[in-house]
Amino acid sequence: MALHDLRMTRLAVFGPGLLGGSILLAARASGRFEVAAWGRREDAVAELRARGMADRASTDARAVAEGAEIIVFCVPIGAMPELAQRIVPVVSPHTLVTDVGSVKGCVVETLGPIFEGRARFIGSHPMAGSEQTGLAAARADLFEGSVCIVTPEPGCDPEDQAAARAFWETLGCRVRELAPREHDDIVARVSHFPHLLAAALVQAVAQTGAGALDFAGPGFRDTTRVAAGPPEMWTEILRTNRRAVQKSAEAMIEKLREVITLLDRDAPGDDLRMNEFLSQAKALRDTLRTQAEGKQ
Amino acid sequence: MALHDLRMTRLAVFGPGLLGGSILLAARASGRFEVAAWGRREDAVAELRARGMADRASTDARAVAEGAEIIVFCVPIGAMPELAQRIVPVVSPHTLVTDVGSVKGCVVETLGPIFEGRARFIGSHPMAGSEQTGLAAARADLFEGSVCIVTPEPGCDPEDQAAARAFWETLGCRVRELAPREHDDIVARVSHFPHLLAAALVQAVAQTGAGALDFAGPGFRDTTRVAAGPPEMWTEILRTNRRAVQKSAEAMIEKLREVITLLDRDAPGDDLRMNEFLSQAKALRDTLRTQAEGKQ
Repeated sequence: MALHDLRMTRLAVFGPGLLGGSILLAARASGRFEVAAWGRREDAVAELRARGMADRASTDARAVAEGAEIIVFCVPIGAMPELAQRIVPVVSPHTLVTDVGSVKGCVVETLGPIFEGRARFIGSHPMAGSEQTGLAAARADLFEGSVCIVTPEPGCDPEDQAAARAFWETLGCRVRELAPREHDDIVARVSHFPHLLAAALVQAVAQTGAGALDFAGPGFRDTTRVAAGPPEMWTEILRTNRRAVQKSAEAMIEKLREVITLLDRDAPGDDLRMNEFLSQAKALRDTLRTQAEGKQ
Repeated sequence: MALHDLRMTRLAVFGPGLLGGSILLAARASGRFEVAAWGRREDAVAELRARGMADRASTDARAVAEGAEIIVFCVPIGAMPELAQRIVPVVSPHTLVTDVGSVKGCVVETLGPIFEGRARFIGSHPMAGSEQTGLAAARADLFEGSVCIVTPEPGCDPEDQAAARAFWETLGCRVRELAPREHDDIVARVSHFPHLLAAALVQAVAQTGAGALDFAGPGFRDTTRVAAGPPEMWTEILRTNRRAVQKSAEAMIEKLREVITLLDRDAPGDDLRMNEFLSQAKALRDTLRTQAEGKQ
């Protein structure tokens, strides 16, 4: 018996898409987990087996949940409550249950009561992924250096928070904590609304006809890249976080009215305000670049 | 004497920034040009010499223009008329003069009359570049596969068009032709307004405070990348193409009102319209990806 034969943590991942698949790969790469995986469809489970991505894979949710110390829901937000109801009879009070949903208020409000006294539930949102989807796009390094927001409710046990943090850090994430509603407001601004804005920009350019999209360069491709993401997933996210996204859209309309006014000048001297507007935006955007570089 | 000792074309590039520098590098890499370069400042000319980027480099515009068969203006749009006036006495009626300005209506209207009967002027807009600027960012392959829009006026000599096309194709561009005003309308939609939109998005997120920008992920970084571009250059572009950019901003406000209404639904069945909106946007966006991949 080896000196360092530490016991492996039993992890169960529900939903083998881009995120679920990447969690499986990252967890195994860390060498610290024994992993079980659940897929809704037989062919998904067959693919998990064929790729050797889990120690066990099944369409039987209870069989996968049983004995797990950490459970991660990587299914659409709308599918979470039913799955939670299905596995709650077999989880232990020590089991840490979390999820990867992009909206947290409604997830925490729905799953929290289901697991109350039955397991330790805490929401998570790993901000990784791309416009690609599915198990084929999964990567062991998807979370490396990315931010994962953990969303404890008031009164959450600090030990549960620490356990959730440790789990995501093991996968390579930088963990931040926010209250669920605060998370939803901030993520509406930096992710959900920008997605809708990219889609709206593509639509606005296309509707003018005249083949304008044929002249799109690399800048336009970057600006609109996220609009290539999966429509069903984004429809659910946007609906679920509707109010906060609408607030962002209203704020952008205000901002656009401001730039139309800035443009409405004739004298070159009035350029100063536009130059200041763009300079401020550049300075703010440059801080993001520095952060990203700092990560590497 | 070698069998293929074809005479080199004498090229003069005015303004050694990202585009001018890249033209110098690409032209020399093609082996078909003898290149002269003009810089406004002595230190820019010294840098061109130090990097060995031109056969001749000088701050004397006439000395650089003299004898050139092709002249390319790579200076800010506002600096072009004065430069044109300065060199017009030494150009020949056979000299092809073009520019790389991002707005074409005003450039063609201003430079056309100056060179009328003195040289062959035709506007160009190579849609290459990045948020980087300056000679240090110049690359010989900057134009490889990128679109260059050549903007002949009605009645332009087809030989001049062919010459401009051949020049940009030699540097690696795919050449398209548009009338100057049509160019300005289309480019407002796919480039100038999206730049302003990216800046406005950064500003809108930042003004909410609460460190929301700290939570920006790779999607937000892509969406706002162009906002890191040089403010002075973009202020000039936006001012010069003001009306078309304002029209795009108004169209985006309309589009945002439409998405706010789409979000304003409660029943999950109403998701269909949002799903359709995002699906259409994704399909349109995916055509860009295919084009970009097709190029490679």
